Amino acid sequence: MSKAPYVPPKVWKNDAPSGGQFASINRPTAGPTHEKNLPVGKHPLQLYSLATPNGVKVTIMLEELLALGHSGAEYDAWLIRINEGDQFSSGFVGINPNSKIPALLDRSVEPPIRVFESGSILLYLAEKFGALLPRDLPGRTETMNWLFWQMGAAPYLGGGFGHFYAYAPEKLEYPINRFTMETKRQLDVLDRRLGESAYLAGDSYTIADIAVWSWYGQLVRNTVYSAAEFLSAQEYTHVQRWAENIAQRPAVVRGMRVNRTWGDEESQVAERHQAADLD
Amino acid sequence: MSKAPYVPPKVWKNDAPSGGQFASINRPTAGPTHEKNLPVGKHPLQLYSLATPNGVKVTIMLEELLALGHSGAEYDAWLIRINEGDQFSSGFVGINPNSKIPALLDRSVEPPIRVFESGSILLYLAEKFGALLPRDLPGRTETMNWLFWQMGAAPYLGGGFGHFYAYAPEKLEYPINRFTMETKRQLDVLDRRLGESAYLAGDSYTIADIAVWSWYGQLVRNTVYSAAEFLSAQEYTHVQRWAENIAQRPAVVRGMRVNRTWGDEESQVAERHQAADLD
Repeated sequence: MSKAPYVPPKVWKNDAPSGGQFASINRPTAGPTHEKNLPVGKHPLQLYSLATPNGVKVTIMLEELLALGHSGAEYDAWLIRINEGDQFSSGFVGINPNSKIPALLDRSVEPPIRVFESGSILLYLAEKFGALLPRDLPGRTETMNWLFWQMGAAPYLGGGFGHFYAYAPEKLEYPINRFTMETKRQLDVLDRRLGESAYLAGDSYTIADIAVWSWYGQLVRNTVYSAAEFLSAQEYTHVQRWAENIAQRPAVVRGMRVNRTWGDEESQVAERHQAADLD
Repeated sequence: MSKAPYVPPKVWKNDAPSGGQFASINRPTAGPTHEKNLPVGKHPLQLYSLATPNGVKVTIMLEELLALGHSGAEYDAWLIRINEGDQFSSGFVGINPNSKIPALLDRSVEPPIRVFESGSILLYLAEKFGALLPRDLPGRTETMNWLFWQMGAAPYLGGGFGHFYAYAPEKLEYPINRFTMETKRQLDVLDRRLGESAYLAGDSYTIADIAVWSWYGQLVRNTVYSAAEFLSAQEYTHVQRWAENIAQRPAVVRGMRVNRTWGDEESQVAERHQAADLD
């Protein structure tokens, strides 16, 4: 190919679709595209989600809470088909104006409270049930440090590395190098930390581990992006140890199956309305 | 130019520097590059930072707390020159293993507590002083929703749009379109929300406004990236109203000057150790 260098216009116009997988759900505007209410089940917590890395954070958390005996964490998990635009319904936008999964409605309080952003949902549930978040100030603070770290880091992994390595219509060398370098740096940050302590915030498993595992644990176990070899994931030995350990937790195995519509058919549970749906 | 399509190798190697402004501080590994302790001043709170959008979140917050009469929020703000690698010193990495500003050490407790990630610092200070975070569950939850929204959204603005539009060595059409579309979508999310209420979480100014203003308020006021025309920022009228309103706050004017080493020389206060440094 031979072409002139790209010169951005003075004012951007939406005349060049960004392309690639998921292009159909990218747009430069927000708000609902159609009127539709969300379904509501019998439990206090209504979750609207899909088993992406951000989605499984919340289903893992809910299954951990149930495993700890918090029956108030019983939930209905409804499927949001992001490739079909379910996240742009008026009902979904009312709970999450950002039109991204996961979104939670807590109907145990009146009026119900909306919770969006996976990090906000993890914190909300941890505080509601007093679980998986240390009560002492140093432990709580270190947990929040790593929870916020995940929120700021994973867009470079998901929206950066994952997009340009796995989904973009053309392999572009500069963005792939840029985001690969950052993803490897992030894995090294985690590896050094997990060489110091069993879990991210110290000796105990917390919401920070759930959030980080859902992205970086899956990355090194090669269950997202098929990039473990490309990233030399086996070199991050502390991350590998921690990732395998968490993957064995029964609540993690259960949570990973909820709202899943791909992969091993036997593991898929498109919607969850009672514990028996996963038994 | 004419060249063969790029084919990523099976295993990535660091043989193609990512380039562009700030390339010298990007690397695929974490940890300290040199031994050096951080300076420590007389106040309980020691901040190590620079007046980037993430940095000013914390100086604005501290100035707001002082304006509210919380004398325990007195702080020393030390300059971290990220282009000179100060964030890779052993002292800085000990407070933030992710080597990013801002980083805070709270020496009012023993042993001192480290706080990193700007969102974690805002939450820590809000809870320590009981300020700028509603106490009622609906208000607190909506504040946290938008605080976490900022953390997950701004990497697309800063590490995506800002990098490819302003800093990358070559203008690449596909990444610029991708991240421009997302940045405009995010501005529309905010515009719709700020059409419903004065501030992001409702009637009152919170840490969510501080976090979002530092990126998106500056974006529409054209004080980062010089991209307001390109993004048609004037169309987001609710964001504009909110951004101008917050920009007038005395604590915002003060906080914006701390750890600043560029722009109008009279406004620059490279280090802050007492209120008089800003008077």
